[in-house]
Parts: sequence; C-alpha cells; structure tokens
Amino acid sequence: MSEQAKVWTAALAVIGDEILSGRTQDRNVAQVATWLNEQGIRLAEVRIVPDDSGRIAETVNELRARHDYLFTTGGIGPTHDDITVDAIAAAFGVRVVVHPEARAVLEEYYRDRPGGLNEARLRMARVPEGAELIFNPSTAAPGVKIGNVYILAGVPNIAASMLQALAGRLAGGRPMVSVTVGARAAESEVAQLLRETEEAHPGVAIGSYPFFKDGGYGANFVIRSEDGNLARVTGEDLAERLRAAGYEPVEGGI
Amino acid sequence: MSEQAKVWTAALAVIGDEILSGRTQDRNVAQVATWLNEQGIRLAEVRIVPDDSGRIAETVNELRARHDYLFTTGGIGPTHDDITVDAIAAAFGVRVVVHPEARAVLEEYYRDRPGGLNEARLRMARVPEGAELIFNPSTAAPGVKIGNVYILAGVPNIAASMLQALAGRLAGGRPMVSVTVGARAAESEVAQLLRETEEAHPGVAIGSYPFFKDGGYGANFVIRSEDGNLARVTGEDLAERLRAAGYEPVEGGI
Repeated sequence: MSEQAKVWTAALAVIGDEILSGRTQDRNVAQVATWLNEQGIRLAEVRIVPDDSGRIAETVNELRARHDYLFTTGGIGPTHDDITVDAIAAAFGVRVVVHPEARAVLEEYYRDRPGGLNEARLRMARVPEGAELIFNPSTAAPGVKIGNVYILAGVPNIAASMLQALAGRLAGGRPMVSVTVGARAAESEVAQLLRETEEAHPGVAIGSYPFFKDGGYGANFVIRSEDGNLARVTGEDLAERLRAAGYEPVEGGI
Repeated sequence: MSEQAKVWTAALAVIGDEILSGRTQDRNVAQVATWLNEQGIRLAEVRIVPDDSGRIAETVNELRARHDYLFTTGGIGPTHDDITVDAIAAAFGVRVVVHPEARAVLEEYYRDRPGGLNEARLRMARVPEGAELIFNPSTAAPGVKIGNVYILAGVPNIAASMLQALAGRLAGGRPMVSVTVGARAAESEVAQLLRETEEAHPGVAIGSYPFFKDGGYGANFVIRSEDGNLARVTGEDLAERLRAAGYEPVEGGI
C-alpha cells in the first residue's frame, strides 16, 4: 500500500440565478472537476448560489476556510447583476479597487471598438484590494485571485481559458487515476461482487453506473485511486471476478 | 405592486462522486429547477456532495432546516456506493427499515426476472423509519419522502418520473414568470440602461446573458418575477428603451 500523502482539496462555488432557475445548463462543474483531477486536486464539494451578495460572501468564507482552494464561476461581467467581485471583497473585508494592469488591458482592447472603455466595461477591471489577475488569451477581461480563491468567468469557454492559464501552477498531489470496466450485467446482479472487490483493495473506491443501451442493461464500474497501479490491479481483479460470474468484462467501459 | 406573499424555497443536494470527478455531467439541477418553478417554489441553493455518509447527513440537516423543501438526487440504487438512505436516516436519527409496500412492488417486478429479488435489489426497499414512498411508473424502485426531504434517483429520466408523480402535490406560491428580450447589443453597451430598467420596476430581477452567434455579439435579458403582469410590463419597457438606444429588441430572445 502507498504512503498516505496529503490530499489536496478544492471547492467550487457556481454563482448565478440562471443556473438555479433552470434556464442555463451548468457546464463548469464537470470542466473544473476534470481540470482539478489533472492538477492532483480533488473537487470535494460544489455549491450553486444565487446572485445575492450576502449568500456569496457567506459561501466563500465557509469554503475557503475548509479547502486548499476555492474556485468561483460567474458574475464577473459588465452588468448590474455581476456582483461577484464586490461580494468576495466583502467576504475578505477589503475594498474594491480598479487594478491598473486590468485597466490597461481593457483600454487597449476597447481602444478601437465602438463605445470605448465605458463605465460598464471598466467594472471588469475592479478587484478586491490585494488581488492578482488571471490573464487569459480568449478575452480582455481577466480572472482574479485573492488568497486561495480563484474567481473565474461563468461563460464556459472563457472559464476554460482561465483554467488553462493556471494549469501546472497550483500545488497538488498525484492526479486521480480512474480505470473503467464495463459489463452487460444488471448492477443489482453484481452488487455483492463489487463490494467484495472494493473491500479486497483498500485505497480504491468503486462506483457503479448503470445504463440501458442497444436494448439491454449494463453498467460501467469505475475504480478510482491516487495510486495508479492499485487502480489497474483492482481493475484486473474485477474483470476476473466478472468473468468467473459469467459476464464478459469490457476494458475501458461500454 | 402585488402584496408580499410567502416565497417558498427549496434546496437540492446532488449526491455522487461521479459528478464531482467530472465523469458525469449533471442533468438534475436544471430539471429540478424547472419543475420547482412550475410548482411555485424557488430553488434557492444546490450542493453537490460526495458519497460520504457524514457529509450527506450534515448537508441534509443544514438544508432541510433552512428551506421549505429539500430534494436529493443520487445514491438510491442497489450497489455498495448507494448510501443515501442510510445517511439520511442518520441525519434524522432514525433506523433504516424495509418498507413493506416497496418490498411488495420489487417482489412483483423481479418475480419473473433472472436473479429474482436478491439482497442487493432488496436494498432499494430500505427507507428511514417513518418515511413514505414516491411511486413512479418508470421503475419498480420508489423514491422516498421523510419530513420535508424528497429522495430521488440520480438517473435523470427516473428522477423526472418521480417529479411527475409529485407534481401539484406540494404547497407553493405563484410560479415564477420569466420574459426574455434579446438584442444585438454588447451587454457592456447597455449595462446602464438595464440597471435603470430594473430600478424602475421594483419586484423584478433582470439577468443579462451575453452570446456570440452568427458572427456577432448579442445578449438576452431575462426578466423574472412572481408577478406575471409586472414581468410583461417591464419587458415592454425594456424593449422600448433598447429601441430608443438604437437596438432592435427581439421578443422571446435570440
């Protein structure tokens, strides 16, 4: 068994009435989760909160204390409903200031565009005092880092671009490795076998994800561990046990 | 202006390592949100938590105290990682029992199926003591209601079927009405106009959702209120203000 190393954890706060109203399908949870796995950081919890300063500040303070990192998405655009920066400044008990570098980038970007750098656009240069910027190639408006809090855009491809700018720059542990084995088995037929496999390999978690596809039932079994070798060995063991029980295991899943 | 009526709120706890690992794209937040709007109940917050009994119980106790309703999705299948019922029983401080009606339904369902009602499948008849069942036409395994907590399946179409069984049966207020007006305007050009429109109509919230489509920028502005007439009047006012500023408003959005 491997030595117990520190498990690095992060939380994500998704900010936006449009997610809670059902109008917009969130895409950031899956994308931040996948990116964090690559950094060796585990997404430990997510909260989706409305565009309400008090609720945002409360959530930010609770989550940044509890985890190594907190990411937020949403609410950093130019309109009146973009209140994330103000709410997070309040959470840290600091003022909101215009960041000179952010202002310079926006001035450059809007120099030849209709309307120029108006008051609304200048909002996107506002940061909690003491914050750093997260530059990204896809838009002029940067993300913001203060303490262990990373403030990202809500539009998924802009958030992706900010994550890319941060890749490899956060301390983390080993990436989580997952091995998937599929079988044309109703999960309720192999539940005991799964439980035994998990118990035989301390340090792995096995998830069972049933599906109905091409006219038949089946399930994918996902073995996750920070110990890649352990995950692989467990996958082979599970495949063997499935075969012994009369099911054809499919490496990589169905 | 309308009288201030009670605002009914709900929280949603999404339970599952597969969402937090990024493996599975959640679909339940949007579907529960939309359904709640129809019932006149506002989805006020969402938490996504791992398959961890302690974390589930803590989350359930916090959220059920804070809102009129709590919904959970995920973790009620037949396998070892399905621990929602046990965790919620612990949250309520009650035992887990086999519900006789749920057992009868499962017995009937599995009578002629291979394997019959085995131990794993019988897990799906387990409920916190004192709970009621939420029957649904799409599978034999029912959802569970205890106190103000509604325990639904994680598979989106099964969750949908359980929501359908509950439709019209929960006390709520007036459904939230939303009116959308789109324009080929960069949101940073109309930010001031939006703010003024919102301020002119107390009781509405206006969200601004930018897009880039067919080679041009634009935004949809979503006006939300429990007062349908107020939402419509505000939409007309916003359309007029947009037109006066040189933009062509598009009713229903772009």
